[in-house]
Amino acid sequence: MQSLITLGKAAKSAGQKLASLGTEVKNNALLAMADALVANADFILSENEKDLENGRNAGMNESLLDRLALSKDRISSMADGIRQIVALPDPIGEVLHMTKRPNGLKIGKVRVPLGVIAIIYEARPNVTADAAALCLKAGNAVILRGGKEAINSNAAIEKVMLDAAISAGMPNGCMALVKDTTRESANALMRLNDYVDVIIPRGGAGLIRAVVENATVPAIETGTGNCHVYVDKDADLKMAAKIVINAKTSRPSVCNAEEKLLVHKDVADEFLNEILPKLAELGVEIRGGECVRKIYPSATPVTDNDWKTEYLDLIIAVRIVDDLDTAIAHINENGSKHSEAIVTTNYENSQRFLDEVDAAAVYVNASTRFTDGFEFGFGAEIGISTQKMHARGPMGLAELTTIKYIIYGTGQIR
Amino acid sequence: MQSLITLGKAAKSAGQKLASLGTEVKNNALLAMADALVANADFILSENEKDLENGRNAGMNESLLDRLALSKDRISSMADGIRQIVALPDPIGEVLHMTKRPNGLKIGKVRVPLGVIAIIYEARPNVTADAAALCLKAGNAVILRGGKEAINSNAAIEKVMLDAAISAGMPNGCMALVKDTTRESANALMRLNDYVDVIIPRGGAGLIRAVVENATVPAIETGTGNCHVYVDKDADLKMAAKIVINAKTSRPSVCNAEEKLLVHKDVADEFLNEILPKLAELGVEIRGGECVRKIYPSATPVTDNDWKTEYLDLIIAVRIVDDLDTAIAHINENGSKHSEAIVTTNYENSQRFLDEVDAAAVYVNASTRFTDGFEFGFGAEIGISTQKMHARGPMGLAELTTIKYIIYGTGQIR
Repeated sequence: MQSLITLGKAAKSAGQKLASLGTEVKNNALLAMADALVANADFILSENEKDLENGRNAGMNESLLDRLALSKDRISSMADGIRQIVALPDPIGEVLHMTKRPNGLKIGKVRVPLGVIAIIYEARPNVTADAAALCLKAGNAVILRGGKEAINSNAAIEKVMLDAAISAGMPNGCMALVKDTTRESANALMRLNDYVDVIIPRGGAGLIRAVVENATVPAIETGTGNCHVYVDKDADLKMAAKIVINAKTSRPSVCNAEEKLLVHKDVADEFLNEILPKLAELGVEIRGGECVRKIYPSATPVTDNDWKTEYLDLIIAVRIVDDLDTAIAHINENGSKHSEAIVTTNYENSQRFLDEVDAAAVYVNASTRFTDGFEFGFGAEIGISTQKMHARGPMGLAELTTIKYIIYGTGQIR
Repeated sequence: MQSLITLGKAAKSAGQKLASLGTEVKNNALLAMADALVANADFILSENEKDLENGRNAGMNESLLDRLALSKDRISSMADGIRQIVALPDPIGEVLHMTKRPNGLKIGKVRVPLGVIAIIYEARPNVTADAAALCLKAGNAVILRGGKEAINSNAAIEKVMLDAAISAGMPNGCMALVKDTTRESANALMRLNDYVDVIIPRGGAGLIRAVVENATVPAIETGTGNCHVYVDKDADLKMAAKIVINAKTSRPSVCNAEEKLLVHKDVADEFLNEILPKLAELGVEIRGGECVRKIYPSATPVTDNDWKTEYLDLIIAVRIVDDLDTAIAHINENGSKHSEAIVTTNYENSQRFLDEVDAAAVYVNASTRFTDGFEFGFGAEIGISTQKMHARGPMGLAELTTIKYIIYGTGQIR
C-alpha cells in the first residue's frame, strides 16, 4: 500500500502547515473552493454521469441512483455549504484557560487541530465537499475514502477543490482522495497510525462495525440511532402524538428518527388507540407484543431482535411499560445511546429521565429529530458521535480539534 | 471468557448507578476505602509477601522487586492518595454551557461519567488503589487488569477496597479485578465493547502497542515520552544547563524526562563544552554525530535508530542544528508528542516553538519534567495521554468524564 503511505506523508506535512495558517487564508481558500465547484459544474456533472451510467449498468436501484446524482442545484448547495463554514468562527488558537502555578509557571490550554483526519464514507459525493471543508477550516489535513460507486464524481470534486485550495495558499496534500476503492485500501487507511490522527466513518452499520473492528487509528463511532420516545403516565397526550408522528415519520431513514415507542400502562389504551391508526395511515408498520396487539390487533408480533434494531424505515416497535424505571432500564439496555425522549408534565420524572438515561442527547417534550449540528446551533456537522470518547452527539468544528498545553517558564526545574 | 462478560455486565450496571450517586456518598465511600487499606495493612502485606516470594523464586531483579514491594508506609501513602482525591471537586453534573435556540429549545451540555473504564497495568500494586479511586470519584465503574507478578497484592487491595465501598453505599460491581492474568484475558478485555466504554493502558511501550493493535474498545494511548530540549542561539546558557541537567537526570526512568538535546550551531561549542562533561559526571552516556564528537570525543556514535528511541535511562543523544526550523522539524519528525522545550531569550522564536511544535506540552524556559497532573494543578493523574483524541497530556478527573446533551422542550417538532 505504498501510495497510501505517500499520501499519508503529504497529509501529515500539510497538517503541520495548516496548523499555523491564519483564519483569513483558510477562509479565502474555502471561498475559492466554493466558487470553483460552481465554475466547474459542467466537468463535475460529466464525471458524475459516468458514475450514474456505471450504476445503471450494475442495476443500482432508483433511491441509490438519486443519492449519487448531482445537478447544478446540488453543486450550488455544496458551494453554499462551504460558504456557511467560512462564516463560522475559527476554533483554532482559542486559549481555553490559563493558570499561574505557585512556582510561577504559566500553563495554558490552547485549541489546536487534530492533524490528519481520515473520513471513510459511502455513496453520496456531497460528503467529499462538506467533510473536506470542515476539516480544513479546523486546520486539519483530510484524507477522503469514498465508495467506488461515486469514484468519478469524488475525484472530480477533489480535483476542483484541491486546485482552488492550493492556488489560494493552502499546502499541497491538504486534501486527498484515496482513488483505490477496494476494501484493502479502506483497511490500510484504518491502520495508518504513523500519519492519521483520527478516523471517522460516515455510513451504515456495516461500515461503522468494520472501522471499530479493524482500526488501530483512534476512531469516532458515528450514527447508529435506535431512538425511543417514552410517553409517561403524566404526558400531554396531544403533544405526545405530535412528537411521535414527527420523530417517526418526518424522515424515517435518518439516525435521529424514532424507532421505538414506550408507553406507560395507565395511558396505553387511550394513547395507542389514538396514535397507532394514525401512524398506520402514514404508512408505518406497527410491531408489538400481546398487550399492544390487544389494543391494536393488526400489529405485527414483535421479536426480541426488534428491540435492538435500527429500522431506518417506516416501522415502529411499541412496548407498554409499568413505570418510568422500566422505561429507563429498557432504553439503557436496548438503545444505541443516540437520542431519547420523554413526554411528561411531571417535573420529577423529567429530571430522572435526563439524569438516568445514558445517551448523547436526552429530550424532555421534544422530538428526537433535533439531534443535528445545525439544529444545535453549531452551524455545521461532520456526523453524530455515539461513543463517549472525545466527542458525543453532533460534531461541529470544535469536535475536529484537540488541545495542547503551552507553558511559559522563567527557568523552572523540578 | 464467560467470567469477563459476567464482570462486564456487573460493571455496566454499577456504572449506571454510580452516574447518579451524590458527591457525598462517593466521598464517604472513598474515605472508608482509604481507612480500610490502613486497617487491613497486615492482610495486604501478607498477600504482598506471596508475590515477593514468587518474584524472588522466578529470579525477578531488585528494582522490579522494589516496585512490587509494599510496606506500612506505602499503604499509608495509597490511603493518603485516596484522601486527596476526596478533596477534589466532583466533576460530574457540571453544565458546561446551555443555550436557548430560536425555536425555544434549551440545549445544555452536561458533564457525565464515561461509564465503565478498564485499566491494564503492570507490576506496581499501588495503581490498583489510585486508578480505582480516580475512576470512582468521577462516577465510573472500573475493571482493573494488573500484572501476574502482583496478583495476590492486587486481589487483597481490591477485596479490602470493594468491601469498604459496598458497605458505604457504592453499588456491587463498581470495582473489579480480573483475576485471570493471562494474555488472553487482557485481549478479551480490550474487545469487551458491549460493557467497557474506554480502556487505558498504564505501562511500557509493549503494553501500549498491544492495546493500540488489539483493542476494539476506544483506547487512550499513554506515556511514551521521547522528549527534547532545544537550546536556541539566543538562550541563557546558564538556564539551559540547569534545565537540561534537571530534565535528563532528576528521574531518567519517567516519560517526561529528556531523551534528546538539540543545540543551535552558534552556541554549540560553548554550551556542549560546558554541559556534556557535567552530564557525563552525573553518569549520563552521551551519544552524538560527528560534529558532536568533534567537541566531545568520548561520545558514542549516534545511529538513526536513536532519534526515535525513548531510553528511560541515563543516556542522551545530542544533535547540533542549523536553525530553529531544523529543530522544530526534527522534533515533529522524531518526537512522541509528549513534552518538548525550548530555552531562548528570543520572543519570536519562543512563539514559533509554541505554535509549531506538535506535542501535548510545549515549554519555554522550563524543564519537561513538569508534565504531570499534580504539577499542572489537577490534584491527581491517571496517566499522560500522547494521542490527540479525547484527552491530551496529563489526565485528571475531568478526562475521566464525557458529556451528554440535555434538551428541555415544550413540544417542539421538526
